[in-house]
Amino acid sequence: MDAGERARAAVVVTGSELLTGVISDRNGPWLAHELSELGFEVAHVQLVGDRLGDLDRALRYAADDGCVLIVTSGGLGPTADDLTAEVVASFAEAELVLDEEMHTRIGQILEGFAARTGFGGPALDEATRKQAMVPRGAVALPPVGTAPGLVVPRPGGPLVVVLPGPPRELQGMWPAALAAEPVKELLSGVPGTEARSLRFFGLPESEIAATLREIGAERDLSGVEVTTCLRRSELEVDLRPRPGAAGVADALHGELAARHARHLVSADGTTTDELLAAALLERGWMVATGESCTGGMLASRLVDRAGSSAYVAGGVVAYSNEAKTALLGVPAEMIAEHGAVSPEVARALADGARARFGADVGIGITGVAGPDGGTEAKPVGYVCFCVTTGDGQVIARDPVLPGSRADIRERSTDVGMHLLLRAARGS
Amino acid sequence: MDAGERARAAVVVTGSELLTGVISDRNGPWLAHELSELGFEVAHVQLVGDRLGDLDRALRYAADDGCVLIVTSGGLGPTADDLTAEVVASFAEAELVLDEEMHTRIGQILEGFAARTGFGGPALDEATRKQAMVPRGAVALPPVGTAPGLVVPRPGGPLVVVLPGPPRELQGMWPAALAAEPVKELLSGVPGTEARSLRFFGLPESEIAATLREIGAERDLSGVEVTTCLRRSELEVDLRPRPGAAGVADALHGELAARHARHLVSADGTTTDELLAAALLERGWMVATGESCTGGMLASRLVDRAGSSAYVAGGVVAYSNEAKTALLGVPAEMIAEHGAVSPEVARALADGARARFGADVGIGITGVAGPDGGTEAKPVGYVCFCVTTGDGQVIARDPVLPGSRADIRERSTDVGMHLLLRAARGS
Repeated sequence: MDAGERARAAVVVTGSELLTGVISDRNGPWLAHELSELGFEVAHVQLVGDRLGDLDRALRYAADDGCVLIVTSGGLGPTADDLTAEVVASFAEAELVLDEEMHTRIGQILEGFAARTGFGGPALDEATRKQAMVPRGAVALPPVGTAPGLVVPRPGGPLVVVLPGPPRELQGMWPAALAAEPVKELLSGVPGTEARSLRFFGLPESEIAATLREIGAERDLSGVEVTTCLRRSELEVDLRPRPGAAGVADALHGELAARHARHLVSADGTTTDELLAAALLERGWMVATGESCTGGMLASRLVDRAGSSAYVAGGVVAYSNEAKTALLGVPAEMIAEHGAVSPEVARALADGARARFGADVGIGITGVAGPDGGTEAKPVGYVCFCVTTGDGQVIARDPVLPGSRADIRERSTDVGMHLLLRAARGS
Repeated sequence: MDAGERARAAVVVTGSELLTGVISDRNGPWLAHELSELGFEVAHVQLVGDRLGDLDRALRYAADDGCVLIVTSGGLGPTADDLTAEVVASFAEAELVLDEEMHTRIGQILEGFAARTGFGGPALDEATRKQAMVPRGAVALPPVGTAPGLVVPRPGGPLVVVLPGPPRELQGMWPAALAAEPVKELLSGVPGTEARSLRFFGLPESEIAATLREIGAERDLSGVEVTTCLRRSELEVDLRPRPGAAGVADALHGELAARHARHLVSADGTTTDELLAAALLERGWMVATGESCTGGMLASRLVDRAGSSAYVAGGVVAYSNEAKTALLGVPAEMIAEHGAVSPEVARALADGARARFGADVGIGITGVAGPDGGTEAKPVGYVCFCVTTGDGQVIARDPVLPGSRADIRERSTDVGMHLLLRAARGS
């Protein structure tokens, strides 16, 4: 391990439902991101079932793999298949003992629950007691739901942070975990690393790869870990310096931004959604949507952000031709002449939405989402966009977007967000 | 290992971007589900970076853990950090050799790409050659994108199936992987197991747990693996029999369905979305939406399914009070008297949507999604729903839904789907 290597951490997520594909894990990516930001190299994320042996093996695997920190999620509930505290205690060679303070606290929380539901008696007492058992020498973290978390030092390492499975509880407990003495001590020896982010729209991953090769031929970039991630039509590039390479990362960040300025959305991690909200607020503009193939997905995305009522007037999902005409005033003759999927209809949807909602900017989207309904002239994936504004801007596009029905609708929503951003920026 | 144990399989997903939390993995859950359906017990899903040592350790860990099958995803591209073929070859103690047929095939695929982009020359030749290198004794699977997959037997086991990272390519290649001789042979020794599914709406997980304890006290259920998964307002229960326990699983399935009939949505794995589509088609009904806090999320969900134009007329996202009045005819006095979030306005939104789109069934949703805007009488999470139909049904609800802004909007969409289903079923 050379001096520039980062400390390694691992994530262990428990839950048998994650191994039958019933549900997707949200805690692994969230914890991996937090650990990366703190300066760790995340060695791996393991999803394991609620089985004693498997959980134990996962912990030992991470320890053997040189990890100084393991974060677990799940398995802290009151039922028999919630085994994490027991397994971690044995892994850390510590006996489980009743934490009186925690016992009282959980008792109080569950009292309210019992009063509401009528559930109680010996089963409740047992559940309370189980959740208050803490490995000797561990730090208990106060419950966000009913289950406390744990910070468990193991002789010789690694340190194990045990968190509950529900994402809301896990994320809510994270600050307390970081503030716990053993974690603070560990972190003091891990130099932080902040990723430099670049977000591009419409830039192929291969072009960034080519630029990186070119620059890499001129100078040493090995101190910077580059992660590129294509999310539909957006390309996110993260530059994460190893200790001592912050300058190299900054220079590379500037150079990538400059070379691909035409496709650059943001160079500071800001999302397209944040940029659009800020631009609309700055202009004092209200937006209205007229959607066909996206079926409300764009309106819903605009409303995702708290406070969106300050810039979202509303929208119409005009899925049928009759609705396009009746609700947004698209002339029936226009549909007959050019077809429902046409640049003309996209513009009429934008103008109609703007007019009906008294908005400053309108967007129309109409396309062939598939899987059926494509023709040679208008294949599946052909989508017409138009943004029109009260101050006379008209921005139109009609690309053929790749992928499945879901892909096409999601990409269309992305394109819509970017065209709105362009209009709101007036560029 | 007793006779009832299932064969174990493991999933190894590679990609450094998965370990910085930039992106969530979709292949792990998908493969875990497929492997479970085939009858395997999935021991774990590991997410590892594009690092030679980490990938090798992940494979050895799965082998040591008694897995007879490992499926990998990712790391098959043309760039230097795409290491999977090399690592798997070394793991399987097989030399990498050029597969001439695959070389020609990839060359043809990339020719089209080169012609479109102008990219070519020695770099392209090298990429083609790299992707056509196959471990001796392995079966190459034809590319769905540009990268071929691999089925690599290791002396003494396990069998390794190597698939590309893009979900579309991975899923597209899966049937060919299952049809490959070594996989077929392995599967012939694994008794299949089909999960019995139950889907409930509005049933707390604790009630299912209590029922399972009760039945478990009467007779032995150990042959059935029960997975419960709460997805917002729906509870999915999967019963997976171990070899020989199909009868026990069937009896339990029937009993759970009967005891909780009031909350049962489906007992055969059918989703709410499928049930609603079928019910609307059977009635020949068109649906229209009038959404406020969900902002188009319900309309978008209705349009998710191919062929939805047969039963979705459209919808209005009436986010502002003016829009509610202008587009859906909600009287301004009604809003002034009862508030925009009220059962009265929900009903007017439903009636308005139905009238404006000429639909048979309309739904109105208006609520306080938060994080601000709650009052004592109408706290954050208070959402009013109303479904009205041309044949005179009126179904209204006004629950207080828990969670964040995103949770409340998603739960509201779920509730909306279930109320529409109830109306379409006429029950």
